[in-house]
Amino acid sequence: MTSLKVYVSRKAHFSAAHRLYHPSLSEAENLALFDKCSNANGHGHNYTVEVTVAGNPDPISGYVIDLKKLKRIIDEHFIQFVDHKNLNTDVPFLQGIIPTAENIVAACWLQIQPHINEGSLYCIRLYETENNFVEYKGE
Amino acid sequence: MTSLKVYVSRKAHFSAAHRLYHPSLSEAENLALFDKCSNANGHGHNYTVEVTVAGNPDPISGYVIDLKKLKRIIDEHFIQFVDHKNLNTDVPFLQGIIPTAENIVAACWLQIQPHINEGSLYCIRLYETENNFVEYKGE
Amino acid sequence: MTSLKVYVSRKAHFSAAHRLYHPSLSEAENLALFDKCSNANGHGHNYTVEVTVAGNPDPISGYVIDLKKLKRIIDEHFIQFVDHKNLNTDVPFLQGIIPTAENIVAACWLQIQPHINEGSLYCIRLYETENNFVEYKGE
Amino acid sequence: MTSLKVYVSRKAHFSAAHRLYHPSLSEAENLALFDKCSNANGHGHNYTVEVTVAGNPDPISGYVIDLKKLKRIIDEHFIQFVDHKNLNTDVPFLQGIIPTAENIVAACWLQIQPHINEGSLYCIRLYETENNFVEYKGE
Amino acid sequence: MTSLKVYVSRKAHFSAAHRLYHPSLSEAENLALFDKCSNANGHGHNYTVEVTVAGNPDPISGYVIDLKKLKRIIDEHFIQFVDHKNLNTDVPFLQGIIPTAENIVAACWLQIQPHINEGSLYCIRLYETENNFVEYKGE
Amino acid sequence: MTSLKVYVSRKAHFSAAHRLYHPSLSEAENLALFDKCSNANGHGHNYTVEVTVAGNPDPISGYVIDLKKLKRIIDEHFIQFVDHKNLNTDVPFLQGIIPTAENIVAACWLQIQPHINEGSLYCIRLYETENNFVEYKGE
Repeated sequence: MTSLKVYVSRKAHFSAAHRLYHPSLSEAENLALFDKCSNANGHGHNYTVEVTVAGNPDPISGYVIDLKKLKRIIDEHFIQFVDHKNLNTDVPFLQGIIPTAENIVAACWLQIQPHINEGSLYCIRLYETENNFVEYKGE
Repeated sequence: MTSLKVYVSRKAHFSAAHRLYHPSLSEAENLALFDKCSNANGHGHNYTVEVTVAGNPDPISGYVIDLKKLKRIIDEHFIQFVDHKNLNTDVPFLQGIIPTAENIVAACWLQIQPHINEGSLYCIRLYETENNFVEYKGE
Repeated sequence: MTSLKVYVSRKAHFSAAHRLYHPSLSEAENLALFDKCSNANGHGHNYTVEVTVAGNPDPISGYVIDLKKLKRIIDEHFIQFVDHKNLNTDVPFLQGIIPTAENIVAACWLQIQPHINEGSLYCIRLYETENNFVEYKGE
Repeated sequence: MTSLKVYVSRKAHFSAAHRLYHPSLSEAENLALFDKCSNANGHGHNYTVEVTVAGNPDPISGYVIDLKKLKRIIDEHFIQFVDHKNLNTDVPFLQGIIPTAENIVAACWLQIQPHINEGSLYCIRLYETENNFVEYKGE
Repeated sequence: MTSLKVYVSRKAHFSAAHRLYHPSLSEAENLALFDKCSNANGHGHNYTVEVTVAGNPDPISGYVIDLKKLKRIIDEHFIQFVDHKNLNTDVPFLQGIIPTAENIVAACWLQIQPHINEGSLYCIRLYETENNFVEYKGE
Repeated sequence: MTSLKVYVSRKAHFSAAHRLYHPSLSEAENLALFDKCSNANGHGHNYTVEVTVAGNPDPISGYVIDLKKLKRIIDEHFIQFVDHKNLNTDVPFLQGIIPTAENIVAACWLQIQPHINEGSLYCIRLYETENNFVEYKGE
């Protein structure tokens, strides 16, 4: 098996508060658009992020990328900024961005992608709840 | 991030009875083909359906499609017809169709696709049990 | 550790159809009492049953009861009668019993309890859906 | 089976923000006590609550309590007050209470217990994350 | 709420190899007793351990025991000895003990119990697989 | 619906021991590369494998491939060789291969692919733990 493409994935978890609210809209317009997600004092979630890297397993290690190393990259460049934080106020790379799942997953890609040097970042999936999730593939 | 493609997904659940049985086959042939799934008085499942829509997040809302709205579409056009029903006898859009997971997921696509006006329907995954699931992408 | 009491549990799964309906009530009364669960052609579930036996681990084997043996007892005396069946019509030990989760778990106890000869049957938990479950302890 | 005791359980879900912080302590003392859970702008969780009622199944319905009715009680007297809310500021029955899981589950008991008229409230379990949960049995 | 008893639980995970084998029995007797679990070169599991402590929440912190502290106790006195280890050969407190789930959970109790100084250790549950688990309550 | 492409998936489970270790490297180099995964006496996991076959549902049966048949193929050609085994020493088709998840999933493809005669093998996903998984699509 000299050349084969394998997708390797690692999950990580964080707990954060957020509020969906656009500053150019009125309170009533925000409520109409975001309903209970616009609650003034916020709400929160246990988020799960799944990061997938694609590449050829190294002939010596058998790894596309050491998942312990991938875990460190996710922790250092994403989780530590968002875990036990308020996504509207506390996160440098989310300033001025409404923290919908769509916008968080795209911001997560920008944080992590530059640090993947073995294989290439293929997909990030973000669960906001058990029933709601989003994916971004850098397209 | 002016243009990016995000896949957003929503899960929904329903409980239904069904029986796998082809009317042009004899009882013995149905048993040979469908085994215990052809039990005359039926059996049932807790099904989970995952509907995925792909598109660009709206610059104001940050949503590809409001997942509360997607939930309403799934409920109105699919779940209310199948939840706590018998899939062989009670569902208008399954008349004459053997309710295998493959056929249910294709019928679900036809029910939901016309109502997705923000982004486009990308995939529907249907779990029949924890260990068995199918996907359809409109191909 | 000469004497210690350990509770050992084994899960099993079955898929069945059922309908909640009392023959002494009218259709309207059944609908008022059981709502969509009284649908005439039935509905169904993927059930999970968790059987717990309490006792002292054997000094040689370290087992309270071999869980492979417990699995066989559950399969032979319960699962084979209910899996891919209609609980209203097909199950000898449920004849004349409305197949609510409460009644199924009590019937399961009567089926399994006589066959537990190592340790003693302590509890049976039955999941009807991810969100609904019942327990019976022989009281 | 004229007299048997069955425990029936229903799960419900809510998403909320909170902050662990005692007003009589300094910022430094709060940080020492609650660590990252004391983050000034809060964080949040997807909580799951499991409410268990014990009693004898009704001879007609086969129910200890209709789980659809139990769901309504949980929703009306607990979920609607906490879902998509900030537990420090928005919830009347948590005023002046540090919203640890221990305190939330005890408050939930006080909200729900008076409304259980069939069977009796036996236990409430509250998951704060997949790995952390608490139980209260009215003791 | 001056006096109330709350049960708080924390999950932890470890991956280990083991083999079920009694040295006083022949190979054939071990195979008869433990079947495929006696495979000479071992097999393994992702184990999950749930540790439950019962007590009164502290009036200041609202904690029975800080779950971060409970996590440290579990890690220091149990997980670091068993994670990514062979339970037959590598674990001091399992020397001479057949590593059935029953025996592991009892050994875990002895490791952790002396370090619980807030509240009291109430129960340890150990999952060997999704379908097999055991509990010990110090009886 | 004369022509449609559906992806059907079946999960299976196995428990195995393994050790990550390259024979051409020193103990120190193996430790540096594989860390705790190189533990001399091994460790182990509950693995889950998800096999996905793509094809057109048969007009009579409504099946792409009977999932009971797919289960048999997975069991006969993969699970029986790896379940309750040591992946370094006991598995013919893993001889000389470091049993990383990447290498196991590729070997699983080679074992199963020749036996899929209805539809075509599309993807195999292998979970090593809840948080770590890999996928191979035959590329």
